[in-house]
Amino acid sequence: MRKHCFDIPEGIIYLDGNSLGPPAITTAKRVDQTVNSEWRQLMIKGWNEAGWYRQPRTLGDRIAPLIGAAPGSVVLGDTLSIKIYQALAAALTMRPERRVILSDTGNFPTDLYMAEGLIKTLGQDYELRLVEPDAVIDHLDESVAALLLTQVDYRSGRLHDMAGLTQKAHSHGVVAIWDLAHSAGAIPVDLATCNPEFAAGCTYKYLNAGPGAPAFIYVRPDIADDVEPALSGWMGHAAPFGFEASYKAAPAIERMRVGTPSVLQMAALDAALDVWEGVSINEVRAQSLELSELFIREVESRCPQLALISPRNPEQRGSQVSFAFVQGYAAMQALIARGVIGDFRAPDVMRFGFTPLYIDKADVLRAVEILVDIMTNDLWDVEEFKTQKAVT
Amino acid sequence: MRKHCFDIPEGIIYLDGNSLGPPAITTAKRVDQTVNSEWRQLMIKGWNEAGWYRQPRTLGDRIAPLIGAAPGSVVLGDTLSIKIYQALAAALTMRPERRVILSDTGNFPTDLYMAEGLIKTLGQDYELRLVEPDAVIDHLDESVAALLLTQVDYRSGRLHDMAGLTQKAHSHGVVAIWDLAHSAGAIPVDLATCNPEFAAGCTYKYLNAGPGAPAFIYVRPDIADDVEPALSGWMGHAAPFGFEASYKAAPAIERMRVGTPSVLQMAALDAALDVWEGVSINEVRAQSLELSELFIREVESRCPQLALISPRNPEQRGSQVSFAFVQGYAAMQALIARGVIGDFRAPDVMRFGFTPLYIDKADVLRAVEILVDIMTNDLWDVEEFKTQKAVT
Repeated sequence: MRKHCFDIPEGIIYLDGNSLGPPAITTAKRVDQTVNSEWRQLMIKGWNEAGWYRQPRTLGDRIAPLIGAAPGSVVLGDTLSIKIYQALAAALTMRPERRVILSDTGNFPTDLYMAEGLIKTLGQDYELRLVEPDAVIDHLDESVAALLLTQVDYRSGRLHDMAGLTQKAHSHGVVAIWDLAHSAGAIPVDLATCNPEFAAGCTYKYLNAGPGAPAFIYVRPDIADDVEPALSGWMGHAAPFGFEASYKAAPAIERMRVGTPSVLQMAALDAALDVWEGVSINEVRAQSLELSELFIREVESRCPQLALISPRNPEQRGSQVSFAFVQGYAAMQALIARGVIGDFRAPDVMRFGFTPLYIDKADVLRAVEILVDIMTNDLWDVEEFKTQKAVT
Repeated sequence: MRKHCFDIPEGIIYLDGNSLGPPAITTAKRVDQTVNSEWRQLMIKGWNEAGWYRQPRTLGDRIAPLIGAAPGSVVLGDTLSIKIYQALAAALTMRPERRVILSDTGNFPTDLYMAEGLIKTLGQDYELRLVEPDAVIDHLDESVAALLLTQVDYRSGRLHDMAGLTQKAHSHGVVAIWDLAHSAGAIPVDLATCNPEFAAGCTYKYLNAGPGAPAFIYVRPDIADDVEPALSGWMGHAAPFGFEASYKAAPAIERMRVGTPSVLQMAALDAALDVWEGVSINEVRAQSLELSELFIREVESRCPQLALISPRNPEQRGSQVSFAFVQGYAAMQALIARGVIGDFRAPDVMRFGFTPLYIDKADVLRAVEILVDIMTNDLWDVEEFKTQKAVT
């Protein structure tokens, strides 16, 4: 759809946008302008004159339409781990009498780790309750303070029903927090309709903003003025340059800012978002499913050693497809050596992301040919390999 | 000392390195290489092959000598606000029976705000006790869990006695945390000798790493394996790519990492640190004092409207000099319009930073001439201006 906006190196088929998207062609220039024209020329004045100070909000408003959020409800900054901590800490203050954080075993580990850290700091009898993804709906009850889920499972690509789970959560007074790491830019997300209190995500996967790009956080507008920021940094203060001795939270989403925004990374994000101008996320989704259906069909018919672990029903999948293979690590290394870049997740998961912005059918078919070649001609059927444990 | 390493725009005398340092000449190219050669060519492989994953530690080891820290005791990441939160949260777990955080009224607000946020989250009877800078030493007693101070006052440049205060803190069992925002790269710091448990600082001031550059945190090696990270993100996990369900802290300083490091900002920091090769921080300090003494002498003798609020004794000052002037905001605007860039802090403080890496005596004398010209020819002596409140 936007292959002309990228400059993927010759011979590479990049199926790892679910981990780190490639740069847009304009990104290098935009970053260079930020260093050479803004920072070098304006120096300290860049904060106002180049709009650096407003970037976290300006960019939030550019991301908002991709996730069905109202203008002014999204702000950029920090990392996804930090944004999850902020959302969760705020959620728990909204249900002070409850002690359970509900999540699932498919959640990305850092979300769980940050919850553990918060619980330790709270020093009360909080519990992080982990259940199987399918069982989440049955564990939503009046004991639960917050539901913390990643919409698309990082291993399998399995998609949670955000609307249904949020509605069930709310029917029990549970605050809902959605991690959109594998959703934003990959599938249509409609926060305004699904109505969760919080969402957060990263911009270095499907939004192509580069390694270390800032995270975003969404707070539902009707509660944003009441949220208590646990990480109450000066950029979230009502008057950051008043240098008052006590914290007073800025209005609404602005209070979720913490420290100085990463201006160079934000410049890269700004350039990356230009690619989305005129692109329909519904069309991205439709083409991504076409590509992944094609890949599944070809791989299943030609590589019997690989077992699909992503849901077969496309409506229950994000934009990635995962196969289990006992020698998955070695097979992925072989693929990468031949220019097909996916990735591996322990213990045996080969992940492939299908991002129609820069991947087309020819790429998918070529990737399959190379995979078939590797699976046919390499030593995977030798008994020694079958029994050897996958390397992690 | 290193003027040839910078490319300050013609006609600009930059006395605001205490707020945001300028880029080194090599910075733009280094950042561009990171985008074009590393990210574009290697994509996901950059994490290993371009050393991105190790950057927070590699760069920590480059900063360590500037602050008297042992190799392996410093890591980069996040923002100073976040690093202060991490240090303080860890410090409080080390003194579970104590309830006071001692700081001073000259501390930078975000440190105090983060402490407030942490206290709110802890939900116990913690107290943030703020005293006048000179009174800190008398308030160190067995009730205090942690001492949280910024070594150089952001308004006045007043310098705390890190060695003496840390020693006194330790004699009462108080954990010491030093914010080095205005110290690192400006004055010699000797963490190994002063012996505080924690220190943190930013790299966008005297280390010239650019807007939004990462912060650093130091943990004293003998306690680093026992520190409890409150912000327990996956990059601080003992096996970040094992994707285990529970958090297990990485050894030593590595556990202070949280989420994905900001690779483009780290590239800028790496280039900025090249400037320091072969530079002695003692020489930087000596020249900085020469420049600031010259500035003070000239301004005091020629601009009687300005009152020095920095300590007169150079040993009690960092590398900035501040003058109070009721119309300081307007006067600073006039200076900036004529190419002399300092900054203003409410209510009436004009700040000037003296960074010998790119400022020399001729710059100082020229800045004074322009200041004298403004103070002589403008309307500052008109009664209306004298009584008008300073704009913030």
